[in-house]
Amino acid sequence: MLVLAGLGISDEKGITLEELEEARNSDLVFLELYTSIWHGSIKNLERIIGKEIQILKRKDLEEEVHKILKLASHKKIVIFVPGDPLVATTHSSIILECMKSGIKFKVIHNSSIVSAICETGLHIYKFGQTVTIPLRERIIEANSIINAIIENKRRGLHTLCLLDVDVENNRYVEVKEAVRFLLENRVIDEDEKLVVGCCLGSVQKRILWKKASEVLLLNLPLPAIIVIPGNLHFSEREMLEKL
Amino acid sequence: MLVLAGLGISDEKGITLEELEEARNSDLVFLELYTSIWHGSIKNLERIIGKEIQILKRKDLEEEVHKILKLASHKKIVIFVPGDPLVATTHSSIILECMKSGIKFKVIHNSSIVSAICETGLHIYKFGQTVTIPLRERIIEANSIINAIIENKRRGLHTLCLLDVDVENNRYVEVKEAVRFLLENRVIDEDEKLVVGCCLGSVQKRILWKKASEVLLLNLPLPAIIVIPGNLHFSEREMLEKL
Repeated sequence: MLVLAGLGISDEKGITLEELEEARNSDLVFLELYTSIWHGSIKNLERIIGKEIQILKRKDLEEEVHKILKLASHKKIVIFVPGDPLVATTHSSIILECMKSGIKFKVIHNSSIVSAICETGLHIYKFGQTVTIPLRERIIEANSIINAIIENKRRGLHTLCLLDVDVENNRYVEVKEAVRFLLENRVIDEDEKLVVGCCLGSVQKRILWKKASEVLLLNLPLPAIIVIPGNLHFSEREMLEKL
Repeated sequence: MLVLAGLGISDEKGITLEELEEARNSDLVFLELYTSIWHGSIKNLERIIGKEIQILKRKDLEEEVHKILKLASHKKIVIFVPGDPLVATTHSSIILECMKSGIKFKVIHNSSIVSAICETGLHIYKFGQTVTIPLRERIIEANSIINAIIENKRRGLHTLCLLDVDVENNRYVEVKEAVRFLLENRVIDEDEKLVVGCCLGSVQKRILWKKASEVLLLNLPLPAIIVIPGNLHFSEREMLEKL
């Protein structure tokens, strides 16, 4: 059996009691940290569940996923994943492989930036399509990102911009780089106010509501997201003004 | 201090270790269950945290929120809320009141249907604006719902349809009622395939991919959501076909 368990967006204390129970009752515990930045402590997580944790690399869950599936066919394995496990589309394919091979699986959900964004005061039902601001070397189709933002704006909707990461190669889109990308592609202008959320869900949390030109001057911690606000409801504005 | 803590979408075992610690170290623990359907056990949750839990009604967090704030000004209180606490916009106003009154607060995130929807195999970045299918007596502005769905469809995006609830008055939008609403308003037709997710995150989980006319014939458990799919990516289709 394979249990895909979300670590949520905070640290090792973000695991749920169900996850703790599953990990304690499992044969092997794995952890992947390449799809997102996680500020938890592996040592503490090992202490909490009372088991050694093996770190998975991208190739272990992509090219060599058959090894994991083979283990799951006769052992109970838990794979911890930052955030809510299936938001990273790469993990859906593991579930699909389980379905194809008749391997039992279970998904345990956890917090994700996709809903935690509401801590800014912005309403979930006012968001349009989400985009990811890519690393420079991965910009293939800037057009689809730009179009999504323009369409969201036209409808008065907010755009959640996730920031691309390549944790294994230590490459991250910094907040100011992302803002530069948006300015260069003329989907925002320098005077436009953006909402930036850094380390949401942790004690280092920072939420800003500032002009793009001001955000450009700041060094902000990761993980972070940027929201390009659409039309603000008065209660959204009231919350942002209190930041 | 006020701690707003998400219960997530499963049951009492969905609470995180951080939430457990906060609840154990608090003076008072409250629980609101009027914004969503929660299948956990209050008794078990009380046993887990080792404290009595007081149930809050809508009026306690809306008209009489000053009583809660007064308590939070000199005691540490924890309010448990289904899902991720700020997805229900009504809870943002409590945080806003804390900001205005200088009361310390903390939000602890947890799983939400907004990200758990990925268990269907649908990709998060292919969703457009979310809508809520209202209870009959609350239908004021069907137009904004209809327009959002039409615009999402035009862009090839999926629409997540949440189903309205009025737990205190035992009133729920059933899946088939919601489908009827969509058919009556001509945003879908009978042959269109919908994705329905029931009790996602729990052992009773059911995910269906069926024509609207077929969904109309089923009695499905709540909580549930309906997705009106846009253009399906091949990997999304592959997953749905395996259901």
